[in-house]
Amino acid sequence: MINVAVLGYGVVGSGVVEVIKKNCSSISRRAGDDIAVKKILDIRDFDDAPDKELLTKNAEDVFGDESISIVVETIGGARIAYEFTKRALKLGKHVVTSNKELVATHGPELLRLARENGVNYLFEASVGGGIPIIRPLNQCLAANEIHGITGILNGTTNYILTQMKREGKDFSEALKGAQQNGYAEADPTADIEGHDACRKIAILSSIAYNEFVDYNNIYTEGITRITLADMQYAEVMDSAIKLVAMSEKKGDRIFARVSPAIVGKDHPLATVEDVFNAIVVKGDAIGDAMFYGRGAGKLPTASAVVADIIDIVKHIDNSVPNVWNVRETNNMVDINDTETGYFIRLKTRNREEAEKLVNRAFGRVTLVNPPNSGFADELAFITGKDKEKQLKLALESLKGTGSVREVAGVIRVLDE
Amino acid sequence: MINVAVLGYGVVGSGVVEVIKKNCSSISRRAGDDIAVKKILDIRDFDDAPDKELLTKNAEDVFGDESISIVVETIGGARIAYEFTKRALKLGKHVVTSNKELVATHGPELLRLARENGVNYLFEASVGGGIPIIRPLNQCLAANEIHGITGILNGTTNYILTQMKREGKDFSEALKGAQQNGYAEADPTADIEGHDACRKIAILSSIAYNEFVDYNNIYTEGITRITLADMQYAEVMDSAIKLVAMSEKKGDRIFARVSPAIVGKDHPLATVEDVFNAIVVKGDAIGDAMFYGRGAGKLPTASAVVADIIDIVKHIDNSVPNVWNVRETNNMVDINDTETGYFIRLKTRNREEAEKLVNRAFGRVTLVNPPNSGFADELAFITGKDKEKQLKLALESLKGTGSVREVAGVIRVLDE
Repeated sequence: MINVAVLGYGVVGSGVVEVIKKNCSSISRRAGDDIAVKKILDIRDFDDAPDKELLTKNAEDVFGDESISIVVETIGGARIAYEFTKRALKLGKHVVTSNKELVATHGPELLRLARENGVNYLFEASVGGGIPIIRPLNQCLAANEIHGITGILNGTTNYILTQMKREGKDFSEALKGAQQNGYAEADPTADIEGHDACRKIAILSSIAYNEFVDYNNIYTEGITRITLADMQYAEVMDSAIKLVAMSEKKGDRIFARVSPAIVGKDHPLATVEDVFNAIVVKGDAIGDAMFYGRGAGKLPTASAVVADIIDIVKHIDNSVPNVWNVRETNNMVDINDTETGYFIRLKTRNREEAEKLVNRAFGRVTLVNPPNSGFADELAFITGKDKEKQLKLALESLKGTGSVREVAGVIRVLDE
Repeated sequence: MINVAVLGYGVVGSGVVEVIKKNCSSISRRAGDDIAVKKILDIRDFDDAPDKELLTKNAEDVFGDESISIVVETIGGARIAYEFTKRALKLGKHVVTSNKELVATHGPELLRLARENGVNYLFEASVGGGIPIIRPLNQCLAANEIHGITGILNGTTNYILTQMKREGKDFSEALKGAQQNGYAEADPTADIEGHDACRKIAILSSIAYNEFVDYNNIYTEGITRITLADMQYAEVMDSAIKLVAMSEKKGDRIFARVSPAIVGKDHPLATVEDVFNAIVVKGDAIGDAMFYGRGAGKLPTASAVVADIIDIVKHIDNSVPNVWNVRETNNMVDINDTETGYFIRLKTRNREEAEKLVNRAFGRVTLVNPPNSGFADELAFITGKDKEKQLKLALESLKGTGSVREVAGVIRVLDE
């Protein structure tokens, strides 16, 4: 019998308890031992919780109990969760978490601590909800050198963008709808500004390239400036607009970025809609592989946590924890030194003159037809691939000219 | 240092040797030990092979060498491969294979033998080439009760169907093109008749439902009867025609089927084209998850074999092999007792009369517009969902009537 303690009885924590209870016989069969939740730690009162008898407000009931060998941390944040995780690992307890913020912030230290104490620190649920992605990266694709990762890692923003495209809602209306449906929080900043996706691509990249990628060094741009007009142009281009998190190995350095992107309809990410997530992994042997599913939600996320628990139980006395190397010097490529194409919309005073200026500034561009007559004063085009700093300079040179009134929008174009 | 022997120096076998050589440092790091290929067994001559010094024709060089702890079987077929696999397992050597035929035929015995000898028998590469699917089913989704699996499991047929749709080639022309491009073998029977997909869905189902599914009990229909006319109708229906392998848990029994199917454009499998494979897994906690990638090819398949090797090395003294229960009585649901919808094309002598007959026989149907005037004598429709035996009876009742000249096509419709 393996005893588990759950820290934090919120959405994911209660889901973990529910999944273990519901599928206990098949879970025990797969793990090779029985698994039971012995304690649930939460400072809040839950008067009519189904697991009331397991609830405690006293952390000593968890940390002082030697029979508890696995601790599930679903508190979130990087403060109490950080202290509790360190304490558990130092006591020789395995820790499983869904807490992307903690992993992205203190991953190297916590993984090292786990190895020093001969236990595991696992976090399959921290990225992609129930989609298996951490373990496939660590294990199934272990024979590959990973070159790149491209994904839709945030369900809230993907839902908002899908609503804008499908229902013709503008951003704030779509955001409100997402909040009403429980897909966005009251304070949606972490989602719509790309911070959530940023932490997730940092975690995936750290695993893929075997080297800690600090999320503070990742260029991050949210979706708040995406308009219905952009959506209409995307339709003209037979493309979708997605919040894309990506990273690439560039020689011995790493490039990572979170930003809205124009995604051509033949790209596997283009058809990922609503709250779904998808992650494309590029390996030298496998080529492209994609993982797709519900990126959030109580039971999907809980099932990822429980899969980690099962994995620990299967190899309880024989854990082989990975650690993340931390490079002393900066290991990231500056976004200005990377190549991309831009989709640019200009409001013009004189369309013909503006087109001449654009051709002079960017070299050959591909013009995009306006969606309808309401865009008669706009000049929209896709630039060739060039360094971001060149593109920015070229764009800058258009401002304040007589024929260009305003830059109405700039969105990166995702490579095929 | 862990020594590996490779049995069979064909496409996959030589790929395994190549991947181990190429990525040896990262593989060793992930496995926690060095991995080296010590012997390659093949009865053929390879005069200019890069690994010539490792080649042997003498099986004793493998089985008599106690320093070899992992055997990779990439011979294929269920004869010599079967004997060699049993011998290796009995000698306490782990076995990794890409051989779907052997796993689908003798899986229960070989898994039992592995467990008895405290070693692993792993076969990630037997389904979906490089796509991680066996390990996710066994591990990542271990917290789920799996309800169903739906997949495109054969790249050759998917390539042929894509060519028919995209290039307007008929079946035999598309098959010839697939053979010229190396996507189909000289004898394409196993692919185009669905036998390959059948063995793969048998393996996936045996894992998902923890019970051996004998491929001999799976209804299997290939793509040889799919015509360009069917493709044109599919376009009218905004759908694709795919060779779909699926299985479902039905109470305490299992239903499995391989057949062409009409797949609506919003289904995640509809956009899987060319030689790509994709597998949708339905779990009670995770909902739908999809795994997508190259379903065949030297390096993708080899990378799956090497991932299994790494997994064994990580837990070399602590293997927890699964076994497949074999039920004494038949565990499969007869296809005639399952529900589906049919897409049916009738060539008529009298279209109006035929429509009356159809409505009488099938109840309400959805008529499908003919793609062009060349189909003026055809009546095409989608039936409601009903038991296959009812649908077959209804179809039978139309034959030999004055107004129906011929049943030109029957294709199942895949549920959303």
